[in-house]
Amino acid sequence: MTHQPRHMKLGAFLYPTGHHVAAWRHPESDADAGINIRHYQRLAATAERGLFDLIFLADGVGVRGEELAALSRTAVRYVGQFEPLTLLSALSAVTSRVGLVATVSTTYDAPFHIARRFASLDHLSGGRAGWNVVTSADDHEAMNFGLDGQIPPAIRYARAEEAVDVVAALWDSWDDDAFHRDKESGIYFDPRGYHVTGHRGEFFKVRGPLNVPRSPQGRPLIVQAGSSEPGRALAARTADAVFTATQTVEEGRAYYADIKRRMPNYGRDPSELLVMPGVFPVVAPTRAEAEDRFADLQSLIHPAVAVDYLSQHVGADLSAYDIDGPMPDLPPTTFMKSRRDVLVARARRDDLTIRELALSMAGARGHWQIVGTARDIADALQERFEGGAADGFNVMAPILPADLTRFVDLVIPELQRRGLFRTAYEGPTLRHQLGIARPERGHWTARRTARPIAAE
Amino acid sequence: MTHQPRHMKLGAFLYPTGHHVAAWRHPESDADAGINIRHYQRLAATAERGLFDLIFLADGVGVRGEELAALSRTAVRYVGQFEPLTLLSALSAVTSRVGLVATVSTTYDAPFHIARRFASLDHLSGGRAGWNVVTSADDHEAMNFGLDGQIPPAIRYARAEEAVDVVAALWDSWDDDAFHRDKESGIYFDPRGYHVTGHRGEFFKVRGPLNVPRSPQGRPLIVQAGSSEPGRALAARTADAVFTATQTVEEGRAYYADIKRRMPNYGRDPSELLVMPGVFPVVAPTRAEAEDRFADLQSLIHPAVAVDYLSQHVGADLSAYDIDGPMPDLPPTTFMKSRRDVLVARARRDDLTIRELALSMAGARGHWQIVGTARDIADALQERFEGGAADGFNVMAPILPADLTRFVDLVIPELQRRGLFRTAYEGPTLRHQLGIARPERGHWTARRTARPIAAE
Repeated sequence: MTHQPRHMKLGAFLYPTGHHVAAWRHPESDADAGINIRHYQRLAATAERGLFDLIFLADGVGVRGEELAALSRTAVRYVGQFEPLTLLSALSAVTSRVGLVATVSTTYDAPFHIARRFASLDHLSGGRAGWNVVTSADDHEAMNFGLDGQIPPAIRYARAEEAVDVVAALWDSWDDDAFHRDKESGIYFDPRGYHVTGHRGEFFKVRGPLNVPRSPQGRPLIVQAGSSEPGRALAARTADAVFTATQTVEEGRAYYADIKRRMPNYGRDPSELLVMPGVFPVVAPTRAEAEDRFADLQSLIHPAVAVDYLSQHVGADLSAYDIDGPMPDLPPTTFMKSRRDVLVARARRDDLTIRELALSMAGARGHWQIVGTARDIADALQERFEGGAADGFNVMAPILPADLTRFVDLVIPELQRRGLFRTAYEGPTLRHQLGIARPERGHWTARRTARPIAAE
Repeated sequence: MTHQPRHMKLGAFLYPTGHHVAAWRHPESDADAGINIRHYQRLAATAERGLFDLIFLADGVGVRGEELAALSRTAVRYVGQFEPLTLLSALSAVTSRVGLVATVSTTYDAPFHIARRFASLDHLSGGRAGWNVVTSADDHEAMNFGLDGQIPPAIRYARAEEAVDVVAALWDSWDDDAFHRDKESGIYFDPRGYHVTGHRGEFFKVRGPLNVPRSPQGRPLIVQAGSSEPGRALAARTADAVFTATQTVEEGRAYYADIKRRMPNYGRDPSELLVMPGVFPVVAPTRAEAEDRFADLQSLIHPAVAVDYLSQHVGADLSAYDIDGPMPDLPPTTFMKSRRDVLVARARRDDLTIRELALSMAGARGHWQIVGTARDIADALQERFEGGAADGFNVMAPILPADLTRFVDLVIPELQRRGLFRTAYEGPTLRHQLGIARPERGHWTARRTARPIAAE
């Protein structure tokens, strides 16, 4: 395989109207995207035309917030949209190659349900399912599940670690060839291929087996997005791919090296995990047009939305501070602490006011942003891909569907010209696209026994 | 509306290889049906060609049993098949009119998740979703969710009652016109159309709102299948349609009258609920061919499968008794007690041995069975439809896909000739087919306050 060029992996991160916080107000967006299946069918078809490895859906198990002045002006806080697994299942019927990755939180769901739905999606799609493992850190989500506020992060992550183990074990309930379905003998499955899970842990007791046969990919892909310490530990131990929110090349390299360095602790080779930073590309035929496009979007942001969005992401109410003053010292938080640290560090580094930081992060929502031509975008991606900061990227189109189409029509051909991206799909499953081997049944055991959570 | 003929409603109850316990061994079945999406796409297309009101999926959250000698010889105990909501979501993309009804248990899932997925499916399908509410009564299901055995029925049903209320309240989180999505003003939703659920009950505390807009049908349909006392109470209070397992015309009439009699207690008109008994029709051009077809299927049943299946349905192990002796007196049970009572009553009435009862119920799995020509089937359905025992039927094809195709090609035209069934769909949503009005937001409140659970 060494003679083949290394290709970057690309995810199309679909957010209803686009990743820019004001995208829904732009003339090129579908304002009703959140519950418009034709919108998502078009996006999936575009992603597949562009040979994207996968489409990716974020999730929140509740409306994020309750301050209606800001909330009622945004489309991107899970106020009203499809549930991801039902949506991806519907899209499985109208696509044939692109991977289907959905976010499901481990915090308020049972491992049996999670394992079952993703295994079902893997069968429905012929081997294209992936699970983005998250924990739920929002008080408003907690309040939909019997609690008064979020669970402390240490407990959330301990539960997530165990949940992933249970899900992986359930996915191994059956031998690949257990289901004989031999009409003549009457043997539907071979009892030797049936394996009770028998999990007893701190958070879960699950007998199993899963009532879904082993799936086309052996098991669905496991994806993570955490940048916190426990998030990195979980990713290094369990993930096939990790989406990150690193801003600079240096941050990207440091994150990449850190994650890969941890993997041998869990008996894993660093090549077994793909690091795919999020990127928010504003692309146009000329730089001036790209800058105009971005400025148009920024002009559509209501200041209350921007400040409230920043408040959400730093876990503190900033509306009481002078919008044109500096970022204040904030009270301690456990809410997405690593995300807050990244934002506050940027405000200090670039001497930004609350309004400036709010507008800058509300636009790309804290992600790495590139505004320019297809060549500019390709240059920036190539630098990180070849510079030890990325194995690929999760592309966060500012406006949907328009900017995914632009990326496919403008940037993908440029990447292909440079030999950095595929010109045809590698095979039928998501594992084929990502170059990740189909695991043997029982492969997870080594990771479980090597699990040094306390040591991290 | 009185000048219009009354039409029967028909559900196509899809069971992987068919409803006969040995269907998977028959040459006309798809043995891998449980995880074959093309199989289900064909079934859905056939149901829609036949103008069925809906397709219906049962569910179990675990493999039902662990005695491998019998279990490994059956395809119908949830040993390995798609999860229903992912499957129906996939089918929503390749159908346009047929209703999509999935079973989801309230026993091990959160109302927020249930409300969200069905609302999402209702949006995905343009208003064709329905939820069949069940409780989980199997020990092996309980063991997948942290328990050692099933929850007592009184608690299961109390939880189900509350879960349906919470789900219905979450479905009313938003006014129909709350989402303005006005690009000019920047108002995405009208805060006056946003309603916090604020539920605090015995089993659940759920703030809401649901993060899905009010769905095309106002809310998805609610379906139930219980025949026990608490099941009937739940159906009379909450269901739009109820599937039953009544055997004789008399049982059907008694059930029908009982359910409708209860409805005014909850402020409901009896016309607001459709009673749809399950029917297992073995149809062929001649009676002799139909009887041969059924005999062929029966000959494929392994005795261990039949006795074990009967054991499952009466909640007691019958393998220790003489297979050619009478049904013994059984120890008390809380597991599907009403189903057991129906079976034992039939054994006593018809003087059946264990083998005879086991084979008879393993075939049609305890449901009303008709073996004959299209005219025979139509006669039997018409008798119950016109005789106060049914508003329609849930059709349980013995072999799939073959017997659904037979029903559509042979029985549907006969019903249409008699003026008993539609010749075109009434409209885009499941409510249009069933003739059930789209509810106003807040319609549920009356039922909640009228809830006389303790009095039933």
